[in-house]
Amino acid sequence: MTATLYGLGVGPGDPELMTLKAHRILSTAKIIAYPAPDTGPSFAREIVNEYIREDATEIPIIIPMRTQRFPALEIYDEAARTIAHHLDCGEDVAVLCEGDPFFYGSFMYLFARLNTQYRIEIVPGVSSLMACAAEFGRPLAARNDVLTIIPAPLAADQIKRQLEKTDAAAIIKIGRHYDKVCSILDELGLLERAGYVERASLPNQKIARLSHANIDKAPYFSMILVYRGGETWMC
Amino acid sequence: MTATLYGLGVGPGDPELMTLKAHRILSTAKIIAYPAPDTGPSFAREIVNEYIREDATEIPIIIPMRTQRFPALEIYDEAARTIAHHLDCGEDVAVLCEGDPFFYGSFMYLFARLNTQYRIEIVPGVSSLMACAAEFGRPLAARNDVLTIIPAPLAADQIKRQLEKTDAAAIIKIGRHYDKVCSILDELGLLERAGYVERASLPNQKIARLSHANIDKAPYFSMILVYRGGETWMC
Repeated sequence: MTATLYGLGVGPGDPELMTLKAHRILSTAKIIAYPAPDTGPSFAREIVNEYIREDATEIPIIIPMRTQRFPALEIYDEAARTIAHHLDCGEDVAVLCEGDPFFYGSFMYLFARLNTQYRIEIVPGVSSLMACAAEFGRPLAARNDVLTIIPAPLAADQIKRQLEKTDAAAIIKIGRHYDKVCSILDELGLLERAGYVERASLPNQKIARLSHANIDKAPYFSMILVYRGGETWMC
Repeated sequence: MTATLYGLGVGPGDPELMTLKAHRILSTAKIIAYPAPDTGPSFAREIVNEYIREDATEIPIIIPMRTQRFPALEIYDEAARTIAHHLDCGEDVAVLCEGDPFFYGSFMYLFARLNTQYRIEIVPGVSSLMACAAEFGRPLAARNDVLTIIPAPLAADQIKRQLEKTDAAAIIKIGRHYDKVCSILDELGLLERAGYVERASLPNQKIARLSHANIDKAPYFSMILVYRGGETWMC
């Protein structure tokens, strides 16, 4: 009996940005798993709440937020064991992943633990990268532009070096690094060429030119888009 | 009367990778437009063929393939005029875009021409980037990895410089640049850390480690994923 583990991209937040494929798999999934903070509900689960079967068995993977930067790997060891047990019994398991499973997703921790022994199918999803550009209303990249994805927790000099050699950039995981990133962009003369988007595609999303953003506390799920080249920005 | 122009991301190729939102809009769209080469059918239209209304008015935007690198901009001028006419009559228009509209998409040419006068809504889609990683079966980027999107038509020294400064890369628009890209990766010792994917999510897709790929003629819709960092590659 060959059961399948699905890495199910559920999109950036708006439930309608789930794919038809993710919707089909979720509608028949009897066992679902998802990451959840120990401080509140699971974002991935909230996105697809209306599509989850009433009789579904749920496996929340509780992530302690105090160790956010280096998630306790034994939590994934245990989740992988629980999931493996279901797969061994011939039962498919769908793991809900915000955005896309392979774009900076925590699904990689389960993938790394189960990939060699089990059949895994990745269902790609609309990532926050595309959702932020859509909401900000400006193309991410065009023609032969180089586009660089830069995590904000990196050191300032690393971020600066990356920005200097790209045509466009998306600085992700802003959170408490907001001031640092703004300083770098100011120094490089890019503040007027940047856009801020938080919670793209959700009812409480926020969109602004960075120079007019007035952000008090940026959430983890926010992004700064930087358009160094002239053309795309002029659109 | 305020009509809407939709930039409709229809995903990488598998019709099931369209979003629920794109599906809803397409199911009610009475006027659709899409790019089509002068040599054959429109890829974007083929993806969603089964969902197009029978009574839909279709506006193909015929792109001469001999000027592929610098598309004749008067073609987009004319298409924009045709689309504007419908919008002026209060009729919504949905432009079909392969993958995501703002990720290296030709929709930007229409967007640039119509953005200031008309209401435009971008419906983000699953891009080839996410589809290729899903099919190749390896995370694109994780944690604080820098991920760089590099168009293959760039000069060899530019591609090399970009590869030297990133943890992971997606080299897009491979086509006739395949040999050049392989040489660069060989020189950098990255041939064994690269994957080749063409026509991701379609029945005729091809996936291989680059060092075993044996590609005779790479299509435009192919991508080489490069994993410089250790961790993601080891998954």
